[in-house]
Amino acid sequence: MKVIEVQGSFGLENLAVAERPEPEPGPGEVKIRMKASSLNFRDFLMVQGLYNPRQPLPIIPCSDGVGEVVEIGEGVSRVRMGDRVAGCFFQGWPSGEPTVEKAVTTLGSPLDGMLAEYRVLNEEGVVHVPEHLSDEQAATLPCAALTAWSALVTYGGRKAGDTILVQGTGGVSMFGLQIGKMIGARVVVISSSNEKLDRAARMGADHGINYKETPKWGKAVREWADGLGVDHVIEVGGAGTLQESLQAVRIGGEISMIGVLSGGAKELNILPILMKNVRVQGIFVGHREGFEAMNRAMALHKLAPVVDRVFPFQEVKQAFQVMERGEHFGKICLAF
Amino acid sequence: MKVIEVQGSFGLENLAVAERPEPEPGPGEVKIRMKASSLNFRDFLMVQGLYNPRQPLPIIPCSDGVGEVVEIGEGVSRVRMGDRVAGCFFQGWPSGEPTVEKAVTTLGSPLDGMLAEYRVLNEEGVVHVPEHLSDEQAATLPCAALTAWSALVTYGGRKAGDTILVQGTGGVSMFGLQIGKMIGARVVVISSSNEKLDRAARMGADHGINYKETPKWGKAVREWADGLGVDHVIEVGGAGTLQESLQAVRIGGEISMIGVLSGGAKELNILPILMKNVRVQGIFVGHREGFEAMNRAMALHKLAPVVDRVFPFQEVKQAFQVMERGEHFGKICLAF
Amino acid sequence: MKVIEVQGSFGLENLAVAERPEPEPGPGEVKIRMKASSLNFRDFLMVQGLYNPRQPLPIIPCSDGVGEVVEIGEGVSRVRMGDRVAGCFFQGWPSGEPTVEKAVTTLGSPLDGMLAEYRVLNEEGVVHVPEHLSDEQAATLPCAALTAWSALVTYGGRKAGDTILVQGTGGVSMFGLQIGKMIGARVVVISSSNEKLDRAARMGADHGINYKETPKWGKAVREWADGLGVDHVIEVGGAGTLQESLQAVRIGGEISMIGVLSGGAKELNILPILMKNVRVQGIFVGHREGFEAMNRAMALHKLAPVVDRVFPFQEVKQAFQVMERGEHFGKICLAF
Amino acid sequence: MKVIEVQGSFGLENLAVAERPEPEPGPGEVKIRMKASSLNFRDFLMVQGLYNPRQPLPIIPCSDGVGEVVEIGEGVSRVRMGDRVAGCFFQGWPSGEPTVEKAVTTLGSPLDGMLAEYRVLNEEGVVHVPEHLSDEQAATLPCAALTAWSALVTYGGRKAGDTILVQGTGGVSMFGLQIGKMIGARVVVISSSNEKLDRAARMGADHGINYKETPKWGKAVREWADGLGVDHVIEVGGAGTLQESLQAVRIGGEISMIGVLSGGAKELNILPILMKNVRVQGIFVGHREGFEAMNRAMALHKLAPVVDRVFPFQEVKQAFQVMERGEHFGKICLAF
Repeated sequence: MKVIEVQGSFGLENLAVAERPEPEPGPGEVKIRMKASSLNFRDFLMVQGLYNPRQPLPIIPCSDGVGEVVEIGEGVSRVRMGDRVAGCFFQGWPSGEPTVEKAVTTLGSPLDGMLAEYRVLNEEGVVHVPEHLSDEQAATLPCAALTAWSALVTYGGRKAGDTILVQGTGGVSMFGLQIGKMIGARVVVISSSNEKLDRAARMGADHGINYKETPKWGKAVREWADGLGVDHVIEVGGAGTLQESLQAVRIGGEISMIGVLSGGAKELNILPILMKNVRVQGIFVGHREGFEAMNRAMALHKLAPVVDRVFPFQEVKQAFQVMERGEHFGKICLAF
Repeated sequence: MKVIEVQGSFGLENLAVAERPEPEPGPGEVKIRMKASSLNFRDFLMVQGLYNPRQPLPIIPCSDGVGEVVEIGEGVSRVRMGDRVAGCFFQGWPSGEPTVEKAVTTLGSPLDGMLAEYRVLNEEGVVHVPEHLSDEQAATLPCAALTAWSALVTYGGRKAGDTILVQGTGGVSMFGLQIGKMIGARVVVISSSNEKLDRAARMGADHGINYKETPKWGKAVREWADGLGVDHVIEVGGAGTLQESLQAVRIGGEISMIGVLSGGAKELNILPILMKNVRVQGIFVGHREGFEAMNRAMALHKLAPVVDRVFPFQEVKQAFQVMERGEHFGKICLAF
Repeated sequence: MKVIEVQGSFGLENLAVAERPEPEPGPGEVKIRMKASSLNFRDFLMVQGLYNPRQPLPIIPCSDGVGEVVEIGEGVSRVRMGDRVAGCFFQGWPSGEPTVEKAVTTLGSPLDGMLAEYRVLNEEGVVHVPEHLSDEQAATLPCAALTAWSALVTYGGRKAGDTILVQGTGGVSMFGLQIGKMIGARVVVISSSNEKLDRAARMGADHGINYKETPKWGKAVREWADGLGVDHVIEVGGAGTLQESLQAVRIGGEISMIGVLSGGAKELNILPILMKNVRVQGIFVGHREGFEAMNRAMALHKLAPVVDRVFPFQEVKQAFQVMERGEHFGKICLAF
Repeated sequence: MKVIEVQGSFGLENLAVAERPEPEPGPGEVKIRMKASSLNFRDFLMVQGLYNPRQPLPIIPCSDGVGEVVEIGEGVSRVRMGDRVAGCFFQGWPSGEPTVEKAVTTLGSPLDGMLAEYRVLNEEGVVHVPEHLSDEQAATLPCAALTAWSALVTYGGRKAGDTILVQGTGGVSMFGLQIGKMIGARVVVISSSNEKLDRAARMGADHGINYKETPKWGKAVREWADGLGVDHVIEVGGAGTLQESLQAVRIGGEISMIGVLSGGAKELNILPILMKNVRVQGIFVGHREGFEAMNRAMALHKLAPVVDRVFPFQEVKQAFQVMERGEHFGKICLAF
């Protein structure tokens, strides 16, 4: 079967189509014919060698993937032939607290990712996806959507009437907007593009701020939020934006730390965390139970993930280049 | 009546005894004859002008204080004449979520503190203190003890068998140790002094690490904690120690951000917050409901706060100088 | 000023208009010119002497009321002249855990209720109401709406995609429906009237079951809820319906125990509570912090409470008779 | 190999030693040589046909069991040869919310129990037990201890200084006492025997009430608990004691509904649940993550489970007869 691999050494230029033997499901496993995938910034970093430089190569990249179950191993009970399923980012985190053992079961590094004609996964590592979604839409759920859901619902416990700030218009942020509206919250978006802010407004955003025009957007957000600040920030910018987020958040509010975007070390004044009783919660995607709860909500609301564009499987390099340029709005997908 | 004031401009040298008219309780208020106070690092910063440089002067410093109710205003029902009470750090935070309105009701800045012969407070701003405590011991509760309780219990929800790291042997940290043992947890202490580590061990600490001898104490703590890391860090060092704390904490663990010790901006790599699903919870003392719950626990366990030494009221300057030198173990108190 | 009183002994027939001296606000108090009230079943029981037979008479009935602040006492800071406010059911429960002291501060028994031209309350016992509501609509919030909010949000922590069962089409249940939809949940209503089920469907109910036609509605609800049962039941029927609710709820689900409707002792098989890991949470209205959070959500969503009909102040007896006959849909209100 | 079976029809008299082929572990499974078991009231009901009359026979009874891993299947990583492990009551509930799928994986019905020379279980269905315990002590953990832990810690979130009521001196209640003390709480025990109350006091109980001498023990408990009532009741009596428990519990308190002891339907006045804002939480043992957390705590505290007496494997009938007479204090065990 055909797969995409990072071969030899890291770098987009080393992404190549390769042949691997078709895998067969053992006891408790399912074989999936892949239909679609979607890209995450983590995948980009991984391919570039910036995520885990010690990752052995070759590796199949990309943790997101959706397909059809075409074979099931002995004793499988959670899924049936013909079911449409997505792989879980954490293959071994069904629910409960995160642990070291669970943490090393992530697709796309250290485990092979989803850019393959067929993948065999344990039945515990897959979930059914909502029927109303296309394969590409469904492929956006495992990382980006679940991250936003974990931030706002699983960990955040947000409620109707709360105010939420999302940063930029990438995958996690647009799911943050959509999930925020689904739970009855008020959402403000910041972006460097007025056009993107308009698009976000059409998706339901209650307010938009252009952070190029308003570099001190933290204060602007706080003022918009009744002068008190927002209840919740989905922080995807990392150290680069945290200082402003600490301005934007209310006393007693919560910041979901998600971003690997700007990463690295940065000079930070952390006193506001203390003085404002703020909670900074690191969010690393989330568990399967959260994924399933999110899917029930999305099915009920017929939530439509924002797919920016779809590339064929073989053009993964071009797809990553679009991500690198940061022009996209929502998710970039691959179709098999 | 006699009070201690910061007069004219900030600085220890401007602490002076002054005369003020004796206050009388209005409706809902109580008049307290002060018996003892204890010092917090925040008080020291306030006096130096480093806490809030715009604080109007003169001001009576020190938020901690215990005394006897000698007069009660109309309609008072929570306390009676002769009761021994402590003032709440937040005069206006009985329970629930922190808010802007509640946040500005703190004693010792912006409100006058407790270094006065008499203080009049709203009955909602005082709590009864456990009977088994001396006045000086009781005076250590409002800030340091409640901060540790809020960190571990109110916000942390820690349970028996959990592992907790406390940093140094100051007031909050020693309460962290004592409360940690009271709830059935395992506690590790770091200190620059082996002698202080010995003292902590005699108080029940399960392990001690000298951070001068082991500068990479984060890894040492993690190894001690079954190689997984501790469940909870009471972080009093601020930006100066957070990086090591992020090494020490387990995946999914919690860091209570308390320290105004080293404050300020600092170069920080916050990626571990995300990658380890860590929660960083800012703790700003806590509410009265937590104070009352803590007192019930302390009364049941006859917990004895660690009083390093007691100065007379008028020697507050000397008391602050001891704090500045960092020689103390536990709390520095004042007696009236 | 004119008030309505229960005079002499309990019973609807002893409701009468009376004269009382106009009250003046003391320190921390506000004087409200009442505009509207709404009836709760508790008010009906109180008037009949079935709520607390030892309640001294005369008493002004009805805990719900909205009016305009026409005078403020010394030191009042939470409200201003001209503000429109509602009284809190618990005058002394701003937030946090319920206690004995807080429990005895309820309007309409033991404290006087709101059927008066003027009421003086402590500023801590009132909240601003959403601007988009009429006085009558706003008067439905303090008990019925807050009860539903406490059940689903404050205690229940319900999330988008969850399933909720409400019983009948009274005040609490219709708020349960509306709040359920506001937070993104799926709601099923049971009623004895197909016409009322139609009305509920037009308000957004996802499903309706006529419990006269389907006496074993518990099983019918469970089957509708994917064969698993609902996540949450707002139980207003008390002992009379609990057994079926225990059939309707999923393993690990929650039942909010609200109803004083059928009250009294009843033969009950409580084994399902244990075998299904169910949580039964008693809900007694809720605290002010919850009221304020609810109001923010209602303002954002322009939620319109269901007012069945409005009686003039003096026709309170007729209003209670409508309630007694159980013909209403939503809330019965009084206008001053 | 030898096993104990319920053969032909229900009843203690149908317990018999039988021969079954020695099982071999498949992929992901482990083979355990059983060392000890302990009896639960559920086992007694099951054998009598009172738990699930439709349970097919023969069945191996008793869900509790501890043994040594003597063989491991392909791919097993959680345990190693020679490890001492207990089986989890729920073989398929590692963590997270309870579900229908998880609920049907209980040992001792519908799955075979532990009274066998060897048992093969999935590696996900076993946990390591604390080293300081004897085999018999360790065999008491899976149901009784975990039930008490789930009640107080996993669901209850109890804290130091809280007050807890346990009923009688059976297995769950004595673990409730020990775990209560371990977390720093105050514990009151009720019993029909002053001698048993003395024993409980020697184990750390803060107070004891003889419910034969004080049939209205609910009021007596409330008075002992500062006149307010206890924070938590571990309710093992079911409908037979719930009414008094509702007297004993404080406003806003919690009742863990555990007991299958008196079971069945009963006339109950549930109004106090509502009026006191009480939470009644059904507890059905608990998940593996809780089991593991409990074991860490027990290992730290060297907690010694109360073993009343130990019967040899073959005398299971006599052991059940002791349980039936209710003479025991703590747990009845079997040794292989």
